[in-house]
Amino acid sequence: MLDVSFENHGKGSQVVAKDQTEPNTTDASVQLRDIEAAMAALEEVVGAAHILTEPADKAGYLTDWTGAFSGDALAVVRPSRTAEVSDIVKICAANGLAIVPQGGQTGLCGGGVPVAGQASIILSLARMNAVRSIDLAGRTAVVEAGVVLEALHNRVLEEGLIFPLMFGAKSSCTIGGNLSTNAGGSNVVRYGNTRELCLGIEAVMPDGTIVNALTGLRKDNTGYDLKNLLIGAEGTLGIITAAVFKLYPVPVTRMTAFLSVSSLAAATGVLNRLQDFSGGAVEAYEYMPRKMVELICMHFPAIQPTFDPPADTGVLVEIASSRASDSELTDDGSTRLTESVMMLLAELMEEGVILDAIIAQSEKQRNDLWQMRESVLEAITENGPCYHLDLSLPLANIASFVEELDPISTSLGFQPLVVGHLGDGNLHYALSAADGFEWSDLPLDKAKAAAFDLLTRLNGSFSAEHGIGQSKLPVMAHLKEPSQLQAMRAIKAALDPKNIMNPGKFLPLPDVAA
Amino acid sequence: MLDVSFENHGKGSQVVAKDQTEPNTTDASVQLRDIEAAMAALEEVVGAAHILTEPADKAGYLTDWTGAFSGDALAVVRPSRTAEVSDIVKICAANGLAIVPQGGQTGLCGGGVPVAGQASIILSLARMNAVRSIDLAGRTAVVEAGVVLEALHNRVLEEGLIFPLMFGAKSSCTIGGNLSTNAGGSNVVRYGNTRELCLGIEAVMPDGTIVNALTGLRKDNTGYDLKNLLIGAEGTLGIITAAVFKLYPVPVTRMTAFLSVSSLAAATGVLNRLQDFSGGAVEAYEYMPRKMVELICMHFPAIQPTFDPPADTGVLVEIASSRASDSELTDDGSTRLTESVMMLLAELMEEGVILDAIIAQSEKQRNDLWQMRESVLEAITENGPCYHLDLSLPLANIASFVEELDPISTSLGFQPLVVGHLGDGNLHYALSAADGFEWSDLPLDKAKAAAFDLLTRLNGSFSAEHGIGQSKLPVMAHLKEPSQLQAMRAIKAALDPKNIMNPGKFLPLPDVAA
Repeated sequence: MLDVSFENHGKGSQVVAKDQTEPNTTDASVQLRDIEAAMAALEEVVGAAHILTEPADKAGYLTDWTGAFSGDALAVVRPSRTAEVSDIVKICAANGLAIVPQGGQTGLCGGGVPVAGQASIILSLARMNAVRSIDLAGRTAVVEAGVVLEALHNRVLEEGLIFPLMFGAKSSCTIGGNLSTNAGGSNVVRYGNTRELCLGIEAVMPDGTIVNALTGLRKDNTGYDLKNLLIGAEGTLGIITAAVFKLYPVPVTRMTAFLSVSSLAAATGVLNRLQDFSGGAVEAYEYMPRKMVELICMHFPAIQPTFDPPADTGVLVEIASSRASDSELTDDGSTRLTESVMMLLAELMEEGVILDAIIAQSEKQRNDLWQMRESVLEAITENGPCYHLDLSLPLANIASFVEELDPISTSLGFQPLVVGHLGDGNLHYALSAADGFEWSDLPLDKAKAAAFDLLTRLNGSFSAEHGIGQSKLPVMAHLKEPSQLQAMRAIKAALDPKNIMNPGKFLPLPDVAA
Repeated sequence: MLDVSFENHGKGSQVVAKDQTEPNTTDASVQLRDIEAAMAALEEVVGAAHILTEPADKAGYLTDWTGAFSGDALAVVRPSRTAEVSDIVKICAANGLAIVPQGGQTGLCGGGVPVAGQASIILSLARMNAVRSIDLAGRTAVVEAGVVLEALHNRVLEEGLIFPLMFGAKSSCTIGGNLSTNAGGSNVVRYGNTRELCLGIEAVMPDGTIVNALTGLRKDNTGYDLKNLLIGAEGTLGIITAAVFKLYPVPVTRMTAFLSVSSLAAATGVLNRLQDFSGGAVEAYEYMPRKMVELICMHFPAIQPTFDPPADTGVLVEIASSRASDSELTDDGSTRLTESVMMLLAELMEEGVILDAIIAQSEKQRNDLWQMRESVLEAITENGPCYHLDLSLPLANIASFVEELDPISTSLGFQPLVVGHLGDGNLHYALSAADGFEWSDLPLDKAKAAAFDLLTRLNGSFSAEHGIGQSKLPVMAHLKEPSQLQAMRAIKAALDPKNIMNPGKFLPLPDVAA
């Protein structure tokens, strides 16, 4: 009989077929007959229709949106209830099977697909897609992990409320994935990340026990913060099956503008002025430098530049208000909100910190501005191969970072393509090949090293909103403070001693760090 | 030689003097000679002036503000730097000495003083009282644990900013205590608890390693959320030595009013209307029922009732704005903010949900309203013995809770005295003796059981903002979901395997739960 055992070393996991004469010493070893029994037990839990083992049936679950990450699984298991998730975890724990929780596969870092060679099942939360309840007085909703973000947007809008988490993948990504990666997006400056929007969770722990903390309380100081421990843990400490979210009123009016700011350094001051003016109502503050606008206009001729020539430091800003008085129209047909923001902008122009401003005068003009912002990823992709850095910095250090890294990148033959959620200090800095350079010839490792050195010096983070998954394990091992890694490993070992929850992702093993 | 060993069973810790013939089997056993060596080592770290061992010197550190909790310590150790805290923890870990981190001793639950009989030191953070830096662009401050809350208020105000955490103990409590108990207060409805105000921490872990996560980033998805794990952990997982906090602009105008609302159930709807109207600018929404106003007026004759007779459902509301236009004066001398809120209040009166409203017309009138709110604890204390419940509920269930519990309390001979941070669903429900009843004769256990049963049924929490400490260990053991307790114990054992960090508090041991 073949004894299949597994050694996890982050991305480099592999199946090792051992000689039977050698004693089996690994805890994670799995007997084939155990696998058969486990599959039968799993089928009993979810029914034959919801355990997929044929390659054709599994195919759609094995590779993520980027196409860069894929791995086989023994089966895709699709529970419909939390109790089923609990049973599945217990079966896997008893049989040493790894579990890869899966949402919409849009995380970009390989966190939601199996590590190659890992004896695992994919646990798809897709069937747990109910909005269980909406509390209009408390403005909260209890939502299952498999609900697609956009479906939640639409559902709560029926009640006159919004769930403000917002980004490009909204029609594919799921609430469970949003929670597990602590997804960000373009409205974080106003409403926070997924973490800040969540008041409580229901989860299945690595031993199959169910944690029910769906109370939706605004204050609750009774023990360690398990909710925040599981949020952003990418399924390595348990499976979030449902959550209570905060909801907000629908804004009655919006003011959307594209600003030409005197410098990136000045843009933080402009943000603070807009925040003070509006009482913290800035919903988006997106950095769109000249090169990016030009790139978009080149690849999408239908999109017109906001300024001609585009602004060196362009910022797409949106302010939204739920005050009825802000939506009243003035004599010239503007809303009061727009009128008053225009007064502030005039002040800022007089001071020289804003060079120009274009204010959307209609919903169409607003959509055009946002279409430009949302075309960024496609424009970068069209442009050719590149390496994406998802960084965050203290707001005060953003300008220094770009000013110092740009010339280094350029001198190495790269063209930096930068865009960012500037209000949160979050930069998406892509390294692409400059004109006349071949991507494959470029010293990417050198550019990355320069970026990470600079980032460390300026107190930045190497993963702002896209998580770790598989792709960032090496940089996590290299840059994360050893004392923090040590504490994280202790927590992981305590809650998931068999290392069955999404192994080979998120937390580098000590040997990887060495 | 005497072998002194310690058995921790939550509140019931005791020193057991063992017969030398009996083998010592507990990890926490401490040899007296080890203690002497440990004290010498500690003295070397902080200097003789900052290790207090004489009873007279220690006295001020051994009993908390309530007077109900006290316990002796071998010494009070007062480090001035994070590196010293690290050395202290290493010495204690090596010698099996427990560490009780201490801030301003205002937590009310006994979390900051030693458990009786525990071989422990008190680690006072009082000397670590520097505001290390203020970042005006990013609107953040790096603050050491020993900084008194009010000192931080004053320091950042010099820069034109506010740190919005606000409650009665502000002139005594410290930032470290605020973080360790995730303190709340009256501005949570706008700015969140201490947890939401904190962007990063520096901490010394139970083995003495230092975690430095003081970057002040708004987005950072690189690993488990250690920050939120240590916040609210009451020093049982490590010692927070410094933190980065969010700062906010000083409001340019405020509108403070006392509302007479038609019912407690209607008050949540009024809050939502005020939030929508103001764009989420409600800074305080405090429940002040008739009985409480009468009690305050009785004990403090200088305070006048807001209405005559006082409102059954009174609410103190404050809306603050940083919009310059809101502070402009209208023809009748009101600010624009006040004028527009008055229009909304008129609407609500027409609808019958508000019966009356008194709006502060001057800073003096505003202070009078707040003085009434801040006299609550003193008035309750003056009134005689009572039992305080610090509860939170989903906003939709607040009214049901009060309506169901009041008659039960009354039938048992109690007079319920209720006040609350209604905007957060946080009720302070005090059980005092009704007229004609002796406190000592009353069936307190029965009333508490009824309250907790009801609370559980209505998805509430038994500790909203005051934490667990020693006083709530029994209810924590009784009411917290076993799966959550199990996960918490696993985390505690993983990070503090020697159980030296603030033992006997916060997390009930399994035998207490049984």
